[in-house]
Amino acid sequence: MKLICTSCGKDYSMDGAYQRCKDCNEPLEVEHVKGKIKDSEIVWERFSDFYPFVSQQLIGELSLGEGNTPVIRSDKLSDELGNVIYLKDETQNPTWSFKDRGTLIGVIRAIKLGYQRIGTVSTGNMAASISAYGARAGLKTTILVRSDIPEEKIYPIVVYSSNLIEVEAKFGEIYRRSLEIGKETGIYFINSDDPFRVEGYKTIGFEIAEWMSKGENIDYVVVPTGSGGLLRGILKAFLELKSSGVLSKIPKFIAVQAEGCSPIAKAYEKGVDYIEEVEEPKTIAGAIADPSPPSGNEVLRKLKKHGMVMAVSDHEILKAQRMLSKSGIFVQPASATTIAAIKKLSENGYSGKKFLCVLTGAGIKVLTAVREMLKLEGFSIQKTTLEELKSALKSN
Amino acid sequence: MKLICTSCGKDYSMDGAYQRCKDCNEPLEVEHVKGKIKDSEIVWERFSDFYPFVSQQLIGELSLGEGNTPVIRSDKLSDELGNVIYLKDETQNPTWSFKDRGTLIGVIRAIKLGYQRIGTVSTGNMAASISAYGARAGLKTTILVRSDIPEEKIYPIVVYSSNLIEVEAKFGEIYRRSLEIGKETGIYFINSDDPFRVEGYKTIGFEIAEWMSKGENIDYVVVPTGSGGLLRGILKAFLELKSSGVLSKIPKFIAVQAEGCSPIAKAYEKGVDYIEEVEEPKTIAGAIADPSPPSGNEVLRKLKKHGMVMAVSDHEILKAQRMLSKSGIFVQPASATTIAAIKKLSENGYSGKKFLCVLTGAGIKVLTAVREMLKLEGFSIQKTTLEELKSALKSN
Repeated sequence: MKLICTSCGKDYSMDGAYQRCKDCNEPLEVEHVKGKIKDSEIVWERFSDFYPFVSQQLIGELSLGEGNTPVIRSDKLSDELGNVIYLKDETQNPTWSFKDRGTLIGVIRAIKLGYQRIGTVSTGNMAASISAYGARAGLKTTILVRSDIPEEKIYPIVVYSSNLIEVEAKFGEIYRRSLEIGKETGIYFINSDDPFRVEGYKTIGFEIAEWMSKGENIDYVVVPTGSGGLLRGILKAFLELKSSGVLSKIPKFIAVQAEGCSPIAKAYEKGVDYIEEVEEPKTIAGAIADPSPPSGNEVLRKLKKHGMVMAVSDHEILKAQRMLSKSGIFVQPASATTIAAIKKLSENGYSGKKFLCVLTGAGIKVLTAVREMLKLEGFSIQKTTLEELKSALKSN
Repeated sequence: MKLICTSCGKDYSMDGAYQRCKDCNEPLEVEHVKGKIKDSEIVWERFSDFYPFVSQQLIGELSLGEGNTPVIRSDKLSDELGNVIYLKDETQNPTWSFKDRGTLIGVIRAIKLGYQRIGTVSTGNMAASISAYGARAGLKTTILVRSDIPEEKIYPIVVYSSNLIEVEAKFGEIYRRSLEIGKETGIYFINSDDPFRVEGYKTIGFEIAEWMSKGENIDYVVVPTGSGGLLRGILKAFLELKSSGVLSKIPKFIAVQAEGCSPIAKAYEKGVDYIEEVEEPKTIAGAIADPSPPSGNEVLRKLKKHGMVMAVSDHEILKAQRMLSKSGIFVQPASATTIAAIKKLSENGYSGKKFLCVLTGAGIKVLTAVREMLKLEGFSIQKTTLEELKSALKSN
């Protein structure tokens, strides 16, 4: 098995810690494999044919029970949007985001390469996920963050006892420097689009395909998109299943970005092949605010054939987040971009289509967004006394 | 089918909104049923024989994908505690606590009885869960809280658009008054030990039993205990499976309370049959701080045959929470009581036993506990510059 450059096709050995192509600096991916679906309750076992490079025993030892998340049909959202809405709830994962699926495979990769230290540059879902799986695996784990990180964002990371370092620099600078220093100091930085992280995300695609095989058809998979790693993983799963003869048709993909940081959407609109770095990202959807998405060009390449890219505003995101929670599901702003995008499409003539939204992370992680949302609505709390309670309940 | 008083055995019709016995004021439960396990990916379908009073169609419509949570073996905790530790991770649920399983069945009950409004008195897991499922079902949902609720606790509840009312009164007063007013105003208050909520919790026991049937044996199920509803549900599942011939032996149960609010543990220690209300509950494990547990006496009755009750201090809870997160799992303080209890037992000679801990809710919901935990440890953040980053990583 080999790693292959997603752009020029140059191949690399699986025995090295390669992440990007030395020639064109584009992301590498594990070569496509074919296989059959097996019978098991555990998604990694059912699809073990598609992970010939990963030890099932290590998965058993290091798993925290990620994956096997539900697909929920929302009649309420379907009515509101005039299209059929299915929700893949990735908030029901060990650290309450989709990252866990990729982190597991990334950590196993680091171990196989002989690393005893792992790390990442993140203040959100990925930092928590890497910290949790690093703890589970007994690896020394380092999280690099900007020095202006709010205190409440530190707790869900350091609780796992990872080593958090505040660096006085811009996010992009820390990110690039960490990759160089990682190699020199023996730390495997499991980035947002690391080839093995992307392999982990394939399980989302596999689970969607399994669910479809029971008779549910969908037209579009809608994916919140920052770095591009998640979309790449889900699409790769569908492509591998198709070439394995398991699936005959692949749904279209819609990558959604936040307007305040939408380099992939901008390049898509302009019809150019390369993304441009965003100078000052500004959006409430922090989890997808990647100013220089490492898989941005590859997402553009893939979506030429397989779909499209959209951008939505913070106002639209907050309204969509509220629509979702009024249907019983509390997601973070990044995940709500999916519903905001479908709302836009429905206003532009889309109707009766079947959409499956990947709800990437839990809303409980970003309470500031709820404060914003409630402010928009002029929300106020009702107060009463024990004596007045009955009439308060009656009038309500 | 009937509802039966857990104490005097008096029976009540399933067609009424009965929750407690009119004679002895003890909790009612649904009469025991027998059944077979079916083949399905959905736990409610596999165990549908044990829910003859619930419409599977309504479950399909109102489910948010609760249940089917993983059991994780922790070698690290097993080594540290000299016993084998399994963790049932209930934080991987739609609103990130076990409550969702009970809420679903409670909501279905309310609908069947003709209610269009539901409610609860809670500031935590249950309030969020009721709000989510109320939204999903399109019911008007009312959450009553004390007027001193901190603002950040309001967001995860009202995000679902439930109607939150602050009442100037003590928790116990609001709780008791709500039950009276509920009947008068047409609101079904789905309490912590509502008979149908307890039925929903049976799925935890069913899933544990299924997992055991693959060859894993356990000696003790360890359950964080506030109202007593959760323990009753899990134990009822085991008893029903045993009388159905599916299981031959039932593990022992350990109910764990926080010392700052441990009415059941106190009664158990004294050897009395009735709990006494705690005047001023004070513990970091807010999710189990029930000063007057409505199922307290019934838990005492059941544990005479099936197990025991323990209490652990806040200091022990915080240390156990840290042990768990250092193993990759971030729970709320109430859930950490399980590991604190096993630590105590291991210091008192227990070794080589197999414990399964029910991890009831996500740590991300109670960040104040992490602040306390880090304060205990004298935690401080490392800071550096881009230039010094390499040496900082090397020395770390």
